[in-house]
Amino acid sequence: MSVVNTFRDGARLTITLNRPDSLNSIVPDMLEEMLEILDAAASDTTLRVVVLTGAGRGFCAGGDLHGTGSGGRPGRVETAIAASRRVMRISQTFRSMPQQVIAAINGPCAGAGLSWACAADLRIAVDTTTFATAFASAAVGGDHGISWLLPRIVGLGRAAELMLLGEKFGADDALRIGLVSRVVPAAELMSVVDQWTTRLLGLAPGALAAMKANLRESQTLSLGEALDREAERLSYAFRHPDAGEAARAFLEQRPPHFAD
Amino acid sequence: MSVVNTFRDGARLTITLNRPDSLNSIVPDMLEEMLEILDAAASDTTLRVVVLTGAGRGFCAGGDLHGTGSGGRPGRVETAIAASRRVMRISQTFRSMPQQVIAAINGPCAGAGLSWACAADLRIAVDTTTFATAFASAAVGGDHGISWLLPRIVGLGRAAELMLLGEKFGADDALRIGLVSRVVPAAELMSVVDQWTTRLLGLAPGALAAMKANLRESQTLSLGEALDREAERLSYAFRHPDAGEAARAFLEQRPPHFAD
Amino acid sequence: MSVVNTFRDGARLTITLNRPDSLNSIVPDMLEEMLEILDAAASDTTLRVVVLTGAGRGFCAGGDLHGTGSGGRPGRVETAIAASRRVMRISQTFRSMPQQVIAAINGPCAGAGLSWACAADLRIAVDTTTFATAFASAAVGGDHGISWLLPRIVGLGRAAELMLLGEKFGADDALRIGLVSRVVPAAELMSVVDQWTTRLLGLAPGALAAMKANLRESQTLSLGEALDREAERLSYAFRHPDAGEAARAFLEQRPPHFAD
Repeated sequence: MSVVNTFRDGARLTITLNRPDSLNSIVPDMLEEMLEILDAAASDTTLRVVVLTGAGRGFCAGGDLHGTGSGGRPGRVETAIAASRRVMRISQTFRSMPQQVIAAINGPCAGAGLSWACAADLRIAVDTTTFATAFASAAVGGDHGISWLLPRIVGLGRAAELMLLGEKFGADDALRIGLVSRVVPAAELMSVVDQWTTRLLGLAPGALAAMKANLRESQTLSLGEALDREAERLSYAFRHPDAGEAARAFLEQRPPHFAD
Repeated sequence: MSVVNTFRDGARLTITLNRPDSLNSIVPDMLEEMLEILDAAASDTTLRVVVLTGAGRGFCAGGDLHGTGSGGRPGRVETAIAASRRVMRISQTFRSMPQQVIAAINGPCAGAGLSWACAADLRIAVDTTTFATAFASAAVGGDHGISWLLPRIVGLGRAAELMLLGEKFGADDALRIGLVSRVVPAAELMSVVDQWTTRLLGLAPGALAAMKANLRESQTLSLGEALDREAERLSYAFRHPDAGEAARAFLEQRPPHFAD
Repeated sequence: MSVVNTFRDGARLTITLNRPDSLNSIVPDMLEEMLEILDAAASDTTLRVVVLTGAGRGFCAGGDLHGTGSGGRPGRVETAIAASRRVMRISQTFRSMPQQVIAAINGPCAGAGLSWACAADLRIAVDTTTFATAFASAAVGGDHGISWLLPRIVGLGRAAELMLLGEKFGADDALRIGLVSRVVPAAELMSVVDQWTTRLLGLAPGALAAMKANLRESQTLSLGEALDREAERLSYAFRHPDAGEAARAFLEQRPPHFAD
């Protein structure tokens, strides 16, 4: 049985981390499967929405410490850096893929599991979820993009507090600080994910991909440079039939029907 | 009658978007008038405060979709990009002009109208205001700087949610997430804007312009580079008579009287 | 008597701004002492935690205006810029030093005092604390990094409001907007600082320093570049005995004992 399950339903792919006995903690096989799944997904033109969730009672507890604890890491450090960097491409792909990524946080979410959740476009959590950065307890500085993502989502002060003190926090705190968009009882998690999916599938895919690209790039551009990108993507969008259809549908007070 | 009205009262210019029958939705003429008004305002040394608001019951509903829906956009895409980029200079001017800009959000605020509000220095909204990014519904990725401004104001997670799902939200939500500084009943909107104006006019204009420049530049600089700019502007400020007057007024427990 | 007191207790250094008669407002001597103390602290390998607080009823009221008000600043402006920039290295050192810095905000916190608090890694305030940016009242644009730090901690909209309008705000507001992590009665301030110190001293110093560096650098890098840095620091962390000890302690359900 695989450590990552996938389920395709029309234009949506659900990726389920599948090591429920250890709260879906991350092992090397899981990283390889995630890379393979995401590379295929990113170039799949019939795919629109990706949902990331966990099997059993947890979302993802971060890196499995059994591997870390088994002894020193052999070999040259440069090789280790390259290997680490390679698997961290998972977070990068979540953000660069044109599809929308929803983290459906069904339970404990910590360490690199939190990094992956932060790399998603949208986050929803079950009301009993416990969050923790957890890197400090593992004596590492953080990975899979937590250092870049968390301060941009919750602010630099809260990010430093959550990273350095490493205390657990609940779903209500996560909602309050803007880490998740919605908190729901467990029984409602997938129905809200379905609503979001339906909403996203009803919109123009090119527009959503452009938004995602604009938001991503604007983080390290000046306002003037960001306007350059917006202007370019806007001009291409206006040449796409979807923009005309959106306007006509609005004026005719009917739902739009987009080309792809 | 113009699609943008201006009213000059001493050191304050009020710009009123004036297409009340369509919630002040943006048409090409409005963009041209805004560019002209803002270019003149930015270089007007007797002007201190700019207020942006809307005629009738709305602030600005974003781009008018009648234009978009009328058919394909002809011509070379490079020309379209340049034309789009040119009018997006409106948001850039709001942020680069030395004057302080107050968005007095009197009603529905969506699309590029929200971008312009975000480009202001200060935002206040009437309690019944409805906000929406609205770009997804128009099948475009966003324009007039929303991609750069919104994540810096409300955080990247909330910005992605508001952009991708595109749901409407109210003034209380806008206050909670830091999108606006104040929410008031409609009858009090302009009296708070007056209070803010009085407050700003009582401060040293050079100091306020330096703050605005420091905040703008710091977004894409390292801390060390930002300190370089602060040190330069601080040193010039200390040579200006206003800094001495501010200190003397403080020590003498009287209001300061600034030179310009 | 010095204008800055220090107290060393094991791996913790408490720095107390000591001009209680003027709410510890900043004078040139204080800047020189701070530079000297922080340079020594940053390279002290036995030091782990730095606490910044104020003597008497205030934290720090910002620059002392008696100096500013005494007349024009003579000499070349370039010299003044270099001198200003040199002392602003205080904020930079707070952020670049490998130790964790806690601002224990015991009372009024304004101007450059607020900048220094923002430059700390963690902030806690007494419930009666009054905050103000205060630069506008002094007719200057801000210094010691406020322009870079404040928008990253509270968002660009709130930062602009707090800078331009310059209104005082309380500890509850500071907590709500993420400026401080905790608000406590005065009698509990130092006991929470002690708890945080104990927590930090129980973690691996290299991991905490890596977190701080990752968070600092990620502010001006793309996600891909930030992942490069995380991968490098992670790989070195995994070669350090502390990572193995952390994993073994976790698996053996005992507290870890770190090497340094």
